[in-house]
Amino acid sequence: MDVETESLGEFEFECGESIELDVAYETYGDYTGDNAVLVCHALTGSQHVAGHGEDKGTSGQAAAWWDDVVGAGKAVDTNDWFVVCVNVPGSCYGTTGPASENPETGEAYGPDYPPVTVTDWTRAQRLLLEIIGVDSLHAVVGGSVGGMNVLEWAKLYPDFVRKLVPIATAPRLDSQCLALDAVARRAILSDPNYQGGRYYEGDPPDDGLALARQIGHIMYLSKHSMEEKFGRRAARKDPSDDAYVSEDPTSRFFPYRDVESYLDYQAERFTSRFDANSYLYIMRAMDEYDLAEGFDDDGDALAAYSGETLVVSFTGDWHFTVEQSEDLVESFRDAGVDVEHHVVESDYGHDAFLVEPEKVGPPVKEFLEG
Amino acid sequence: MDVETESLGEFEFECGESIELDVAYETYGDYTGDNAVLVCHALTGSQHVAGHGEDKGTSGQAAAWWDDVVGAGKAVDTNDWFVVCVNVPGSCYGTTGPASENPETGEAYGPDYPPVTVTDWTRAQRLLLEIIGVDSLHAVVGGSVGGMNVLEWAKLYPDFVRKLVPIATAPRLDSQCLALDAVARRAILSDPNYQGGRYYEGDPPDDGLALARQIGHIMYLSKHSMEEKFGRRAARKDPSDDAYVSEDPTSRFFPYRDVESYLDYQAERFTSRFDANSYLYIMRAMDEYDLAEGFDDDGDALAAYSGETLVVSFTGDWHFTVEQSEDLVESFRDAGVDVEHHVVESDYGHDAFLVEPEKVGPPVKEFLEG
Repeated sequence: MDVETESLGEFEFECGESIELDVAYETYGDYTGDNAVLVCHALTGSQHVAGHGEDKGTSGQAAAWWDDVVGAGKAVDTNDWFVVCVNVPGSCYGTTGPASENPETGEAYGPDYPPVTVTDWTRAQRLLLEIIGVDSLHAVVGGSVGGMNVLEWAKLYPDFVRKLVPIATAPRLDSQCLALDAVARRAILSDPNYQGGRYYEGDPPDDGLALARQIGHIMYLSKHSMEEKFGRRAARKDPSDDAYVSEDPTSRFFPYRDVESYLDYQAERFTSRFDANSYLYIMRAMDEYDLAEGFDDDGDALAAYSGETLVVSFTGDWHFTVEQSEDLVESFRDAGVDVEHHVVESDYGHDAFLVEPEKVGPPVKEFLEG
Repeated sequence: MDVETESLGEFEFECGESIELDVAYETYGDYTGDNAVLVCHALTGSQHVAGHGEDKGTSGQAAAWWDDVVGAGKAVDTNDWFVVCVNVPGSCYGTTGPASENPETGEAYGPDYPPVTVTDWTRAQRLLLEIIGVDSLHAVVGGSVGGMNVLEWAKLYPDFVRKLVPIATAPRLDSQCLALDAVARRAILSDPNYQGGRYYEGDPPDDGLALARQIGHIMYLSKHSMEEKFGRRAARKDPSDDAYVSEDPTSRFFPYRDVESYLDYQAERFTSRFDANSYLYIMRAMDEYDLAEGFDDDGDALAAYSGETLVVSFTGDWHFTVEQSEDLVESFRDAGVDVEHHVVESDYGHDAFLVEPEKVGPPVKEFLEG
């Protein structure tokens, strides 16, 4: 494994604004000329897709988030495949993002960072691959907004890639997800510490970011898995152990629940590893993604792609539904693409693509090797 | 119609704390000795269940929230039934609540208000009915947490009521709803204006309350109805018209969406009519409600009730699901209660009991008269 950063020079974003952009990436395995697999990370993930027994000092999805799927002898076998993963522009794991220093001011970009899109991510990945000498991709694989990133490859660079694996994703978010994401953004924006996005010299808007993450976290779990995991059980600890908010006056009679304790604990872990502006920017990139943009429809957007596709979806996922994946499969068919749809029976919700590697790995392995 | 307030004197809450409690209520129709129907309002509703062409100066659910169902010649016909609706303790429409003056301090109760339960609501309703001379109920009808209030009547006062109509409700919330409600409470608590609940002399925690309401609002709509109503359309107005938060830096490239505009507008209306502490207290009463508490199970809790029951549920409701109503119906059967389950086909989500009166009214009418 190598962790590297490359400069893309002056990079013009889709919005028309330009900055000097460095991108952080990792590679696994050896490049043989035709074995490159690009893995696209999800919203709060990083380029650190798999570990090698080392502690990278990150946590959550940033800590070897697909270590059970990618590696030597694993489903995406790094003995066979040269795996590349790039931290997307807007994120905060090494690629120039809102928390990075703006060379013109000597301060963090903050709200001066360009509004970023999934198209920008895809273009940055393509430029990075050129720099490191990769001139075609055997496959692009990714889940959630990383799956949107996969779809964008078929749309922007249809001749560059032979196989696509969009997982737990959709050509665009529906209104319910847009609404929940909008509330999450408002939670950050209405935190007085947000300071119009220029909070890097003071206290960051952690309360707002915690709320935003908790909303997201609930979206990633299924109703059923939450009921199984937490039910209505009281936590075995005191709110002061986890809760990030001041005391609720009703808590003098009612319990602190396990599900609250879990969400509070996860939120605290998250705020220590993620930048609030990055969350705003890349969540917005996800919200704004629309495969059909600039085309008549999704099938039209995919029409130039002539490789193969494996769509993977999860029955318990209410964020990116099986029905949305079915529609996506139809669009690939309309575009004349050889496509399979693998529906995973799972209670876990959207998170299943991360927490049930044993259900995701085998179909992906077979498809990459087939 | 009469709007009245009665003093219940010193009222001891389930938590053991006591305050002087006034309750606000309205009645419709004439009492004949055996025709009283208690209607229980939902989370942010009021005693003003139906209007008489008058403007009450309230909005949202507080403005004659079931005017299409209750009234002369309507499904709950006030020519036949003497309808009573009581503002629940903890709310802010006339019944003593957190925003009311504490006579001991001359200031609002705020966080000194007793943590309140659905049991307290039910006991307060019973005391009020005694005071106004109602010594039995033909029926208790209510939706959402008002439906929990209905169930509590069967548990606390099984001989006082002959018919129950719990609508769009459940014997207890599941873990997903608890989690979303917990995040909503954290939004209020983490607003610096909350000031430990003593904000009545300053600016109220409207940003937090707006976030809390937006989370709730999304829970009341269905995925399908949101997609139909808003899709991904951009709003035809500027964020400054509605948005209650400072500008999102990504908004210089991306649109303000219709669904955001709707949620912002609704949140602003809500914060102007509702008290943040009331929202905390009564949401917590809903979260903590558990029909089986103190009994072996739900059937055991209902065993002393010998009247009839009509359970109404809605196919698009993901907050209080049809499955939860099926379980409730089973529990009534276990308890030997004559019970029907009316499942309404609806895309509207939890809100259907308010916004599709034409689907709710007829079965309720038939059941009350049958």
